[in-house]
Amino acid sequence: MKLQLDPDRLFPVDSATRSLARALYEQVENLPIISPHGHVDPAILVEDTKFDDPAELFIRYDHYVTRLMHAAGIDLARLGIPNRRSGEPVALPREVWRTFSENWHLYAGTASGYWLQSTFAQIFGIDVQPSADNADAVYDTIQRALDTDAFRPRALFERFNIEVLATTDDPMDSLEPHRALAADPTFSGRVLPTFRPDAYLNPAAPGWADKVAALADWNGSVVGSYAGYLDALAGRRRYFVENGAVSADHGVLQPLAVDLDAAEAASLFAKGLAGKLSDAESRVFAGHMLLESARMSTEDGLVMTVHPGVYRNHSSETFETFGPDTGHDIPVTTTYVENMRPLLEKYGNNADFHLVLFSVDETVYSREVAPLAGFYPSVYIGAPWWFLDAPDSVLRFRSAVTETAGFYRSSGFIDDTRAFLSIPARHDMARRLDSAFLARLVREGRIDEQTAGRINVDLVDSMPRKVFKL
Amino acid sequence: MKLQLDPDRLFPVDSATRSLARALYEQVENLPIISPHGHVDPAILVEDTKFDDPAELFIRYDHYVTRLMHAAGIDLARLGIPNRRSGEPVALPREVWRTFSENWHLYAGTASGYWLQSTFAQIFGIDVQPSADNADAVYDTIQRALDTDAFRPRALFERFNIEVLATTDDPMDSLEPHRALAADPTFSGRVLPTFRPDAYLNPAAPGWADKVAALADWNGSVVGSYAGYLDALAGRRRYFVENGAVSADHGVLQPLAVDLDAAEAASLFAKGLAGKLSDAESRVFAGHMLLESARMSTEDGLVMTVHPGVYRNHSSETFETFGPDTGHDIPVTTTYVENMRPLLEKYGNNADFHLVLFSVDETVYSREVAPLAGFYPSVYIGAPWWFLDAPDSVLRFRSAVTETAGFYRSSGFIDDTRAFLSIPARHDMARRLDSAFLARLVREGRIDEQTAGRINVDLVDSMPRKVFKL
Amino acid sequence: MKLQLDPDRLFPVDSATRSLARALYEQVENLPIISPHGHVDPAILVEDTKFDDPAELFIRYDHYVTRLMHAAGIDLARLGIPNRRSGEPVALPREVWRTFSENWHLYAGTASGYWLQSTFAQIFGIDVQPSADNADAVYDTIQRALDTDAFRPRALFERFNIEVLATTDDPMDSLEPHRALAADPTFSGRVLPTFRPDAYLNPAAPGWADKVAALADWNGSVVGSYAGYLDALAGRRRYFVENGAVSADHGVLQPLAVDLDAAEAASLFAKGLAGKLSDAESRVFAGHMLLESARMSTEDGLVMTVHPGVYRNHSSETFETFGPDTGHDIPVTTTYVENMRPLLEKYGNNADFHLVLFSVDETVYSREVAPLAGFYPSVYIGAPWWFLDAPDSVLRFRSAVTETAGFYRSSGFIDDTRAFLSIPARHDMARRLDSAFLARLVREGRIDEQTAGRINVDLVDSMPRKVFKL
Repeated sequence: MKLQLDPDRLFPVDSATRSLARALYEQVENLPIISPHGHVDPAILVEDTKFDDPAELFIRYDHYVTRLMHAAGIDLARLGIPNRRSGEPVALPREVWRTFSENWHLYAGTASGYWLQSTFAQIFGIDVQPSADNADAVYDTIQRALDTDAFRPRALFERFNIEVLATTDDPMDSLEPHRALAADPTFSGRVLPTFRPDAYLNPAAPGWADKVAALADWNGSVVGSYAGYLDALAGRRRYFVENGAVSADHGVLQPLAVDLDAAEAASLFAKGLAGKLSDAESRVFAGHMLLESARMSTEDGLVMTVHPGVYRNHSSETFETFGPDTGHDIPVTTTYVENMRPLLEKYGNNADFHLVLFSVDETVYSREVAPLAGFYPSVYIGAPWWFLDAPDSVLRFRSAVTETAGFYRSSGFIDDTRAFLSIPARHDMARRLDSAFLARLVREGRIDEQTAGRINVDLVDSMPRKVFKL
Repeated sequence: MKLQLDPDRLFPVDSATRSLARALYEQVENLPIISPHGHVDPAILVEDTKFDDPAELFIRYDHYVTRLMHAAGIDLARLGIPNRRSGEPVALPREVWRTFSENWHLYAGTASGYWLQSTFAQIFGIDVQPSADNADAVYDTIQRALDTDAFRPRALFERFNIEVLATTDDPMDSLEPHRALAADPTFSGRVLPTFRPDAYLNPAAPGWADKVAALADWNGSVVGSYAGYLDALAGRRRYFVENGAVSADHGVLQPLAVDLDAAEAASLFAKGLAGKLSDAESRVFAGHMLLESARMSTEDGLVMTVHPGVYRNHSSETFETFGPDTGHDIPVTTTYVENMRPLLEKYGNNADFHLVLFSVDETVYSREVAPLAGFYPSVYIGAPWWFLDAPDSVLRFRSAVTETAGFYRSSGFIDDTRAFLSIPARHDMARRLDSAFLARLVREGRIDEQTAGRINVDLVDSMPRKVFKL
Repeated sequence: MKLQLDPDRLFPVDSATRSLARALYEQVENLPIISPHGHVDPAILVEDTKFDDPAELFIRYDHYVTRLMHAAGIDLARLGIPNRRSGEPVALPREVWRTFSENWHLYAGTASGYWLQSTFAQIFGIDVQPSADNADAVYDTIQRALDTDAFRPRALFERFNIEVLATTDDPMDSLEPHRALAADPTFSGRVLPTFRPDAYLNPAAPGWADKVAALADWNGSVVGSYAGYLDALAGRRRYFVENGAVSADHGVLQPLAVDLDAAEAASLFAKGLAGKLSDAESRVFAGHMLLESARMSTEDGLVMTVHPGVYRNHSSETFETFGPDTGHDIPVTTTYVENMRPLLEKYGNNADFHLVLFSVDETVYSREVAPLAGFYPSVYIGAPWWFLDAPDSVLRFRSAVTETAGFYRSSGFIDDTRAFLSIPARHDMARRLDSAFLARLVREGRIDEQTAGRINVDLVDSMPRKVFKL
């Protein structure tokens, strides 16, 4: 079966609306990519080494891809993920690719299937759908490309027209790759770190005490000094800012903010280090630190992004055998309005503070996120994320938030990906869908074509720059 | 940029479906407006004084409009809302209009943007999109119109073809404006009061004890007599009925009904007046009074409408500085099924009792509201409201409720507006959207065109009359 | 008014997409019906007696139909449902039919209206919409048909091209009808029982102690022996398996799984028989039995289906007067992720265990069900059910789950009906809607036509066979 990308893909089926969407899309198709939140490893750009093989590139590290094969009954070791318990050898890359190719039908209609198709066709010139019959041939085609200099990370970075790429980093990270790239006169892209402090803020996170100790060690404070802890966090944030960071990212189960006074906070902090916090107390302290992080943002300017509502490592067996990020993170109900009120009471009306609210529970879009962003100058609507970063979901999102908050409270597209090669397909998808959405509004007489064109460019260009202070 | 209303606006983009929608719309386009729930001040019709200026008319009092500019970082005082703390002078109307015009792009795709466009074009004949360049000229155009007799409230009331207009009123209101209008032989419209007792029923509401005292004062009962309190409430409802009221409106955070016996209720009432109720007890007493209000409805016939799920005054700073209704009311999760069961157990099967359930949490439409209205003869589905009163939201609403409850359990459109001039645009929007929805069902072979036509008229005409006992 | 079925009904309105949907539909239109979950009485096929009359066939037992007339203020006795309290005579079938015909407009746009139209036209050749004028004539037309051998249950079973029909049965049922049908050489259809043990597992269910006693009586264990109770349940499941059962169905208010050790469980069991469990303890024990049922499924192979989230008998008055299943079951919020984790921790990664998750709270589709089914090999996505088994709802469902889980984690269509005559219309509806959904994806360039065709056949054929182990 052939693989041919429809040039009008993701546009509305109605022909007049499709024409209009196409015209809008053509205005943004080739604008540079701004990627203010994602998970690409910056080291690949420093070293600029070739990618190993197709399986590593497309399968092993992409839990969107591995989870559907796991659901089909395929052991993750057959997809190249090491079994930490048995230590048995993983499948060879070519075998992984065969397994994937035999199961290509599982991806029909999914976001991953869409990105993979786009990437295969546009980046590697592949013109057949993966199948058992062509697995080896397609593997070889991709491998041959990967062996050329044109497919080294920096060449692709340039080919993809990436202007800004943010990574996600541990607060104690040296940021050496970012420093190296910034200092390299032969590399002109902006690769920015992002401060991701969850494990340092939540006493219930594994290893929290060690991370607190690492902070104390860094700023020479006494382990157990709450003031020293805050000071170290602020210091590490400054270090990130000095190295180009524009945002701090918070991944939390529930987006809870709690306003404690310093004495209460210090007391919980001490109790946490003694390992004596109840679950409820841990939540309270973590909620307090979310609020403290907002305060630090008002001081150092880092944009605060919140990615809540994912039950991580839902399957203990898979977690223990194959580790985290292997497909068993599952969304739960999220609510923002009451949970985040203490934070918004303090900083919500501060227009210099930027707070970007994401969700994998799409019920909050019309009910909470759009109304909050439609009032508080600090609040911006995060783009559809993870499970919702897919064509129909994105259109549902735009439909849910726009009527309340318009277009100028949304963050612009965020790819949130570890899969470097999928970046162009993801941003292209977002541009096509916004063009499709705007074309419908024009055809329904709700906005005029000129306004739609301006908005479409702003969503790709000025909004991410503004929201992320780029 | 030109402002031109598409005569086919809000109709489906598919041409055959669009033609059908247009044909359906033409049958309802000019039917009289029945507005059974809203917030227009009736005094403007008694006095029939000219509107002051464009800023007062379109901006200052419309929190849908002010909130998006506030989100863009504009101080509410610059929009004409007085700062209660500083007492500093507000911006002049023409300056307010300039600020609005410069920010017109914020409204693209929003419900407010749609209504404003319609109103500017249809009522004032404006043919340009607001912008910094034309702010003064448009302001002058509107002001010139407002200075003519044709734009006095009564002339507009007639031009808008309003048959019934319900206002929302405090239980102790004298209803003098309504009485004056009813007694005025030169005014033929029906302007009906609506009994809105929230602040009298909820011990946690500010000033509750004073309101209870005012009731006691009115009927000469002893302050603190629970029987006297109930008697006064029933008496005030009777006064509203005598002055044309058809409904009582209940705005609650959660739609909770509690069935207490009289002794328990009286005990909580006394404790409330002593200021000693816990939050939970206050909720229980307020829930009991919701149930008592339903009982009174079964006696005096007032339709009970419930508008739940809005966290009022989410920003204390804004509330204290600029007051309520300035854009920071935010929806929360709403559930009806278990919360309202005590009320439905008592009165749900009483077909003479009408209970209209609204929501700003759209998840309840298919899950709860349509199934309840599809069984209980008392329950009707409230039209999409507030944040959901917008084109895509309305179509989602119809899609969510119709397959379970059909068309004959819905309330008909409710504009819920303080913005008198937006009334025609809002009702016209609803008529266009119902025509669009019905046209799709016809084209999908689910209903025939003749049935669609009958339903479309019923939604505008017979359903609101039936549901609101007009 | 004429009743004419549009051959293109439920296909997208856009003409090119419609053509494609029609082409896809033609490939599945005539495939045999596989109905792995429903509520048809198997005795009608054993006895093969004629259906009594149109009112019994279409109205009295169909709570989808009666509830909308009840909501319109019509007493259920007028629809043929006996009043258990007054014992007054119910309306005669012809009167019931007249009442229904007069109220036909209530069903416009509903799922029931769609199925009834299809059934009237396709099975009885009726070409007019029901109305007061034609009530007697239509009644007579249907009655004449019912009086012929061609409308006996077995003839219809064959005409409908039903390959498999699952019923829903009490664990202590003798399954005589299923045994008789299996033993009958003149009947070639597969009619399979389904084990539905709710009332035996939940101490809060009316009559639980009697049902526990019946189990003990059956396997000769001591009433009160927890081991005997488990053994009897396992034994009855084996009996069902021996008689063709492929699944066990669990209807629960919340899908809660609890992992108790045997001693804790036995202790709650004893306390339950003594009538001393608190509500919370009852939930815990029922949750434990859900987990035990999953364990039994891993041993005997029965597919576990979960139908949660319905508040049964919401109206006590109606329940006491007319009994259960008379239209007042109302959905509530459902969550799976945390509630079902104990079960998934134990059995989730077992690919031989099949767990099909249904919902009447559509918010869980994208948030929970698709992500769970997209990882756990045991979990399958149940088809839209009850209130959501309707055209727009089905398309919302496909849109909500496909982008995360693809097509190969869904169960295939389940009609869940007691209305034998509606089976073809329901399956046909599902086939049309899947064709419509797939056609859109093809036109949007997301999948190719050949893939769409394969998926469409798989959804009707291989997926239900695989998921239900047929």
